[in-house]
Amino acid sequence: MLNEETLAAVAIATWKNNLEKANKLFGGLDESVLEKQVAPGRNRLVYLWGHLASTHDRMLQLLGIAERVHPEFDAIFLTSPDGASTLPPVDVMRKWWAEVNRRLDASLRELKSNDWRARHTAVSEEDFANEPLRNRFSILITRTNHLAYHIGQATLATK
Amino acid sequence: MLNEETLAAVAIATWKNNLEKANKLFGGLDESVLEKQVAPGRNRLVYLWGHLASTHDRMLQLLGIAERVHPEFDAIFLTSPDGASTLPPVDVMRKWWAEVNRRLDASLRELKSNDWRARHTAVSEEDFANEPLRNRFSILITRTNHLAYHIGQATLATK
Repeated sequence: MLNEETLAAVAIATWKNNLEKANKLFGGLDESVLEKQVAPGRNRLVYLWGHLASTHDRMLQLLGIAERVHPEFDAIFLTSPDGASTLPPVDVMRKWWAEVNRRLDASLRELKSNDWRARHTAVSEEDFANEPLRNRFSILITRTNHLAYHIGQATLATK
Repeated sequence: MLNEETLAAVAIATWKNNLEKANKLFGGLDESVLEKQVAPGRNRLVYLWGHLASTHDRMLQLLGIAERVHPEFDAIFLTSPDGASTLPPVDVMRKWWAEVNRRLDASLRELKSNDWRARHTAVSEEDFANEPLRNRFSILITRTNHLAYHIGQATLATK
């Protein structure tokens, strides 16, 4: 294994580990539990779940690896707070979550060392020349952190 | 910058970004706010803060980069739940948190590419031969995630 492949493998393993936790947290919940708030007056579990699905859906585009699944849900889960929109039915969310993470999983295994250091699609070539850390690897690392952040919150309502 | 140094730089930047968030969350809180629970019946902010300080204190040893600061606090914040022990005074915790993260920051900048792929101190040479991902980089990545997980919870009580 090349040197940087070792580092990428660590990051992918940590991503998967967090994703398994999220699957356990959200995957088996019925609709009534999904309505619970993580703390009084805070986001419902169902909103956090959709927020993570939208974030991962966007990763497909940012990493340039696959078509998005439900970009139209960004308006519900990324640019509006909980309570502002009617949410998709739970069975639609379940399929969405599975499909987004299936596409990510298939692609993460395919990315080579050079790919990780390439710019992500939301940064221009000009900006990337000055800020080489705005690469695909940063998308993986920061979205793994984002996942851990919300798992920490969701755990409070589900344990 | 070497290929793997780019990946390590992304991970260190994400670590620092999370640490700044934690400093903002916990650094300015007075004792009464630190007593707040992140959700009803859950950990107090002061316990989470100590739990993070102990975890980072252990990183100094796991990465083999510096002496630990307060290993005797592990019994309070790592192996006992909130409420089981008398906590150190807040001014002691504040100095501890600053010193641990100062030692980490100084050392992370010194580590070279080869160092990141080296085994961490809690895995034997024999086990590491079979599990090469149990390296120092995995300590940085997983502890950054651990930090994000608890920042997500602490945010619920401080915003």
